[in-house]
Amino acid sequence: MRILILGADGYLGWPTAMHLAARGHEVIAVDSYLRRQLCREVKVEPLFEVPELAERCAIWQELTGGQIEHRIGDLNEWEFIAGIFRDFGPQAVVHYAEQPAAPYSMLNRQAATLTLRNNLLVTANVIFAVKEFSPDAHVIKLGTMGEYGTPNIDIEEGWLEVVHNGRQQKFLYPRQAGSLYHTTKIMDTDLLWFYVRMWNLRVTDLMQGPVYGMFTEETEKDDRLLPFFNYDEIFGTVLNRFVVQAVAGFPLTVFGKGGQTRGFLNIKDTLNCIRLSVENPADKGELRIFNQFTETFSINELAQKVKAAGSKLDLVVKIQHVDNPRLEAEEHYYNPRHTGLMELGLKPHCLSEDVLAQMMAFVKKNKTQIRPDQFYPKIKWA
Amino acid sequence: MRILILGADGYLGWPTAMHLAARGHEVIAVDSYLRRQLCREVKVEPLFEVPELAERCAIWQELTGGQIEHRIGDLNEWEFIAGIFRDFGPQAVVHYAEQPAAPYSMLNRQAATLTLRNNLLVTANVIFAVKEFSPDAHVIKLGTMGEYGTPNIDIEEGWLEVVHNGRQQKFLYPRQAGSLYHTTKIMDTDLLWFYVRMWNLRVTDLMQGPVYGMFTEETEKDDRLLPFFNYDEIFGTVLNRFVVQAVAGFPLTVFGKGGQTRGFLNIKDTLNCIRLSVENPADKGELRIFNQFTETFSINELAQKVKAAGSKLDLVVKIQHVDNPRLEAEEHYYNPRHTGLMELGLKPHCLSEDVLAQMMAFVKKNKTQIRPDQFYPKIKWA
Repeated sequence: MRILILGADGYLGWPTAMHLAARGHEVIAVDSYLRRQLCREVKVEPLFEVPELAERCAIWQELTGGQIEHRIGDLNEWEFIAGIFRDFGPQAVVHYAEQPAAPYSMLNRQAATLTLRNNLLVTANVIFAVKEFSPDAHVIKLGTMGEYGTPNIDIEEGWLEVVHNGRQQKFLYPRQAGSLYHTTKIMDTDLLWFYVRMWNLRVTDLMQGPVYGMFTEETEKDDRLLPFFNYDEIFGTVLNRFVVQAVAGFPLTVFGKGGQTRGFLNIKDTLNCIRLSVENPADKGELRIFNQFTETFSINELAQKVKAAGSKLDLVVKIQHVDNPRLEAEEHYYNPRHTGLMELGLKPHCLSEDVLAQMMAFVKKNKTQIRPDQFYPKIKWA
Repeated sequence: MRILILGADGYLGWPTAMHLAARGHEVIAVDSYLRRQLCREVKVEPLFEVPELAERCAIWQELTGGQIEHRIGDLNEWEFIAGIFRDFGPQAVVHYAEQPAAPYSMLNRQAATLTLRNNLLVTANVIFAVKEFSPDAHVIKLGTMGEYGTPNIDIEEGWLEVVHNGRQQKFLYPRQAGSLYHTTKIMDTDLLWFYVRMWNLRVTDLMQGPVYGMFTEETEKDDRLLPFFNYDEIFGTVLNRFVVQAVAGFPLTVFGKGGQTRGFLNIKDTLNCIRLSVENPADKGELRIFNQFTETFSINELAQKVKAAGSKLDLVVKIQHVDNPRLEAEEHYYNPRHTGLMELGLKPHCLSEDVLAQMMAFVKKNKTQIRPDQFYPKIKWA
């Protein structure tokens, strides 16, 4: 299948590009390097440097003989995105091209405006480009479990049948997010759902939980193929940060009480979820929504798991509760369903001590590059 | 009270500015003339010309001795909006500053992008300006009944208690709109609700139905104080268009079956709703939502009312069902509540033959300026 990956330089974008290319798909990787630019702006950096997209594609070709096309440009610009659609006529579009960090979106007015403008207008351009050039293409959009927030009722997969005063209506599951970034993802869902109804688009919206890990089948070929590995408070996801803190001999920083519970998944499962969605497209006029995670843990449970895995490697891991920079429930009901992707064939890679030990071993090799100043939260929600 | 009116040149903005000024409030009227520019762009015009804001304020002063300040500029520009907040320190902000036409938002990609960008980023700037300069100010935001769409259950005022699998949660009422314009209003609500929770803002979100009429207590002083009166398919609301069609001797154009039911209100009631909201502000940290309309009618019922009123004035009014350019349910359940504003003291001006006759008489004076080419829908939803 001919597949555009938008945001293909990112933590998940590049591994997705390789994963789909390795399975025989024709992949076109597109990025504006926004994330690299924002990391420089806020002075954080991943644990190790990763090559730019052109070089990554060249390494991929050298190692596998396979080709991944790439284009660098801003998807906010219509001429750029229209040109890509005209040139490639994609059958599927995997849309990661959004400012991805909740803390960045809460940094200040400029960062909030950039997040709002970029995330909404790129999604709109994707919709218009599909309509104009590839009306049958399947759009796979990355949403987030954070769209749902932490309601006091079960979280269904995207939709909710409401019974009220004796009548019944199916709605998009009501969403209420905990950051501006997550709120832009709610808006994305609103926008996609509107145009699915108007223009019979074919859309899968993946409500993904926090991802951890860096190893995939493809990265095993060469460390230069590894994705960004951020462990800072802004672009790093929580488990990745805990692993680096454990290796560095710093306490794991738990925000507030640590009862915050979320649905997590291994980066390998992200790739499988995307591939399963691509290879089993939504119908025309369908907004298909999956909750994309494999296991739920509280932050305290994650910290205990990292501590236990660390002790096997003779690391003395401490846990420190720090003031929560976010406004969020620290103890709450959480029961989200996630059967849709399993029914498509997902075989979860669960979080084991081995998985953590493998991550720790790799982080240890880069230990001298760890910057502990990146551990502590500086961006406050209010 | 010191009140900013954003979008003060518009159909409702200018009457609101006069209404609040006449009741002793200090009013600052702000507009970018976006609506005037878009009307020129799509070659539609109101029934009669209205002076620009500076002249309107001068006429107001000449007639009443009262002063309405005005500023012309783009609220997308931070320096402009920040300057206004710094200079005036508003206690209330009435936010009408959005691209207001559903058909315009469906015209093409450029119009859609303008609607999305303008409506979202101006709302964001209002939020940031309130936070930075006037954190206690009360924001009165114009939403629309169209955010709810036409669900098969009762429409509550903004919120819904959902019982699901034996547990209970209060949500923003699930929204599903019928145009991109209406979808941007859903997004506005999402955005306001997020920052109300984060920053303890004080917000009233008014879900308004289609407004009709042009006369208010203030416009009686001088016809030069009348608002825009659009009757075209893009910027004209349905009842205003029907009245002009009746006077022009053209059939009333009903889209599709005409069973579409909405909540309507007289422009006089819009002003009272705004004033009641301003004078009874929401609490800090409260997103207060009212459904702002006084009566529900189907489009067929409206057409019959105009026909009946016309026959009293010896107008032979025909009704023509035309292909519906929109994708919408033409027969549906519709039972929205609207008690909140009544409880604040609203006394509705209902739609009577007298109201229609007064509108028709005025339109008749301008009959030679009616352009029938503006009657027929050209913008299709799909």
